[in-house]
Amino acid sequence: MGNNAIEVMMNHRSIRKFTKENVDRKLLEEIVSCGLRASNTGNMQLYSVIATQEEPLRTELCQLHFGQCATAPLWLTVCVDVNRYHHYCRVNGCDEPYGNLLWLLSGLVDASLFAQNLCVAAESKGLGFCYLGTVNYNTEKIATLLQCPSGVVPVIAIAMGHPDEEGRMSERLGSDAVLHSEVYHDPTDDDIVRTHAIRDNDPFNRQMVEENGTRNYCEIFTTKRYPRAQNETISADLLAFLHKSGMM
Amino acid sequence: MGNNAIEVMMNHRSIRKFTKENVDRKLLEEIVSCGLRASNTGNMQLYSVIATQEEPLRTELCQLHFGQCATAPLWLTVCVDVNRYHHYCRVNGCDEPYGNLLWLLSGLVDASLFAQNLCVAAESKGLGFCYLGTVNYNTEKIATLLQCPSGVVPVIAIAMGHPDEEGRMSERLGSDAVLHSEVYHDPTDDDIVRTHAIRDNDPFNRQMVEENGTRNYCEIFTTKRYPRAQNETISADLLAFLHKSGMM
Repeated sequence: MGNNAIEVMMNHRSIRKFTKENVDRKLLEEIVSCGLRASNTGNMQLYSVIATQEEPLRTELCQLHFGQCATAPLWLTVCVDVNRYHHYCRVNGCDEPYGNLLWLLSGLVDASLFAQNLCVAAESKGLGFCYLGTVNYNTEKIATLLQCPSGVVPVIAIAMGHPDEEGRMSERLGSDAVLHSEVYHDPTDDDIVRTHAIRDNDPFNRQMVEENGTRNYCEIFTTKRYPRAQNETISADLLAFLHKSGMM
Repeated sequence: MGNNAIEVMMNHRSIRKFTKENVDRKLLEEIVSCGLRASNTGNMQLYSVIATQEEPLRTELCQLHFGQCATAPLWLTVCVDVNRYHHYCRVNGCDEPYGNLLWLLSGLVDASLFAQNLCVAAESKGLGFCYLGTVNYNTEKIATLLQCPSGVVPVIAIAMGHPDEEGRMSERLGSDAVLHSEVYHDPTDDDIVRTHAIRDNDPFNRQMVEENGTRNYCEIFTTKRYPRAQNETISADLLAFLHKSGMM
């Protein structure tokens, strides 16, 4: 694979197994620099990234992600960060008005654009990574472990290193499902069946249905992976943490 | 500029003036395809993108962004979308458990990774774009104009087209401000002054201070661009809309 931008993105695979080789500091700085060039609201850069590599911290952080990607030598926790900007305000004798929902949402987008630039750069350099949605499951514990002060909210976790597997190119819905012309077009039942056939007929997904003993692929998500009671408990915990962190 | 991934990202400039040339459908589909390959939570792809090009809709949408980027021929509104997934659940006779804070935040990250891949692809093809944070200022009006049903929340707006200006490479905080080793290191006053010198000493920013008549650059943000009362009003409106949209 070359390092042409479109090729890199079109060939993306999540990597969950890594060699023992560390990500060297110069390479880390280079991919972070790419992240920093991403667009952001008002050029305020309301994010930070914490790079965790040393033991026992690396393993403790991995455990808060339920042991996933255990061989990853580098853990990047990207946070919405209004703490740094508020500190900049204080140094300048100004008000500190960014602890609210508007700046949580703006900061979340900015943190994500930063993270994706960083990840595309990493993949173009031969590194592998996996985003871990579990950052939302243990947000407060992760914030405590990583010593995040008020105004710093972990929102993205990335396990990274040199790949020790090829990775699987997973299926995706196509633009016929996701791209709307002019206004939003609410799909019909037939549209849903047609555009989701790629998901329902995927051999890997069909095998998961068999292993899980569910009626269909969708039901794995709604009853096992991400069921209602779990979603509601986590949402309540997140809301409490956002209040505590001064972001709502 | 080549289309090497890192070069494309390192040379990013926001573009706000565009030629009259449209973005052709094939090119739009190509950059959307790059977006679709981005990582996303559980491969559920809880986002949609609305491409608005035709009048009078294009101008009406531009007005909800306060007339910014008025020459842009293509407006992309990226939304967190649990409506499509819930419809998929209904078709499969399953529960519809994703209208909550957890999936708003997960969807926001996924929508952003999608958008950033799309934008990097666009820039590698010679297109220009500007992200518009004003999507958060008029979220409900934008959702109404674009006929978004419950569960579809506009979170990112991108004005796009063929550049009619070179664009300015704006300054950024460096990794000494944003990258933390092992855990979060709360900066000292001296750290803040040192890492923000690039922002405070930037000639363009100093000129803005003079034009605005503020004591310093920071004060432009806290008193004029993003002052407290405005942030709090918008946050209250956003919260009300998220409740109404079934995402909280």
